[in-house]
Amino acid sequence: MLTIRPATIDDAALIRRMIWELADFEKVPDQVLTTEAGIARDGFGATPLFRALIAEWQGQPAGFALYFDHYSTWRGAGFYLEDLFVRPDFRGRGIGGALLAHVARAAEQEDRRFLRWEVLNWNQPAIDMYKALGGDFMDERRSVFLTGDGLRKLAAKAS
Amino acid sequence: MLTIRPATIDDAALIRRMIWELADFEKVPDQVLTTEAGIARDGFGATPLFRALIAEWQGQPAGFALYFDHYSTWRGAGFYLEDLFVRPDFRGRGIGGALLAHVARAAEQEDRRFLRWEVLNWNQPAIDMYKALGGDFMDERRSVFLTGDGLRKLAAKAS
Repeated sequence: MLTIRPATIDDAALIRRMIWELADFEKVPDQVLTTEAGIARDGFGATPLFRALIAEWQGQPAGFALYFDHYSTWRGAGFYLEDLFVRPDFRGRGIGGALLAHVARAAEQEDRRFLRWEVLNWNQPAIDMYKALGGDFMDERRSVFLTGDGLRKLAAKAS
Repeated sequence: MLTIRPATIDDAALIRRMIWELADFEKVPDQVLTTEAGIARDGFGATPLFRALIAEWQGQPAGFALYFDHYSTWRGAGFYLEDLFVRPDFRGRGIGGALLAHVARAAEQEDRRFLRWEVLNWNQPAIDMYKALGGDFMDERRSVFLTGDGLRKLAAKAS
C-alpha cells in the first residue's frame, strides 16, 4: 500500500538520512555536506529552495523525490529533479515510477514545460526506464561544476 | 571599454535576440520556443524565474549571462548558469570570462556554494577555459529531459 505526500519540516531528518543513503548507493557518501538543519532551512523556510515528496509503503518511509524550479531559454519554465530515491528494501514495487509521475503531474498542474534530471551512466535499469518514458538524453552536453577555491578565485576577477 | 550591468525588462527583446543567436551558434535555432513577452514575464515579473547580466562594449550589446537558483542535496544552494554568450563580433576580448566572473561574484555575495553549467562537447575553447578555472566535469552523469507527450503521459500515471 503506497502513499505519496508532500514533505514537511518534520521530515528534515528523514530527508537528510535518505540523501545520505542515496549518496552511499552512488558510492560517494563522503560528499554529503548538508545537515538536517540545512534541509529544514533550505526546504521549509520563508523562501524554499526545493520541494520534496515522501513515499510511504504501509506507513514506512520508502523513498523520496526532491525538485525545484528550473528554466530553459528555449522552452521556458520547468522542474529540475535533483533526487529520486527508493530504499533498497522497497525496490521492485513501482515506487520510483510513482514518485516520478507525481513530479510530472505537479509540472503539468503548474504549467511547466519540462522535467529534467541526471542519471549515473552505470545505472542501466534507471536509464532503460527513462528511455521507456520517452526521455531525451542530452549526451552532446557536459556538466561543469565550480565550487570552493575555484569559485572564489573567479569571483575575485569581477571588476 | 566593457560594462556589465543587470538586465531590466527593457532588455527583453535584446535577450530574446541573443538567445536565438546562441541557439544558432549551437546549430539548433529552430528549438527556441521562447518569445520576447515570455522573457519579460519570466524574468521580470512578480516572481522572476531567472536573472540576467548584459555586457556592453563601448555601449554596444556584446553578450549576456542568464542564471537562476539551483540546489544540491550534497552541497546546498548554488546558481545554475543557463546561458553565457558573446556575440561573434565581440569575441577575443575577455567578455565571456568577465560575465562568468560577475556571476561567480553574485554567488559569493549571496553565500551560494557552487556554480554549474553545461558546455557542448565540441566546444573545445570553452572546455579548455572551464578546465583552467578549476571546473569539475561530471562526465559520469547523463542529463535526461522529458517534455511534451512524454511528460503528459507520465503525469497521467500519478494516482
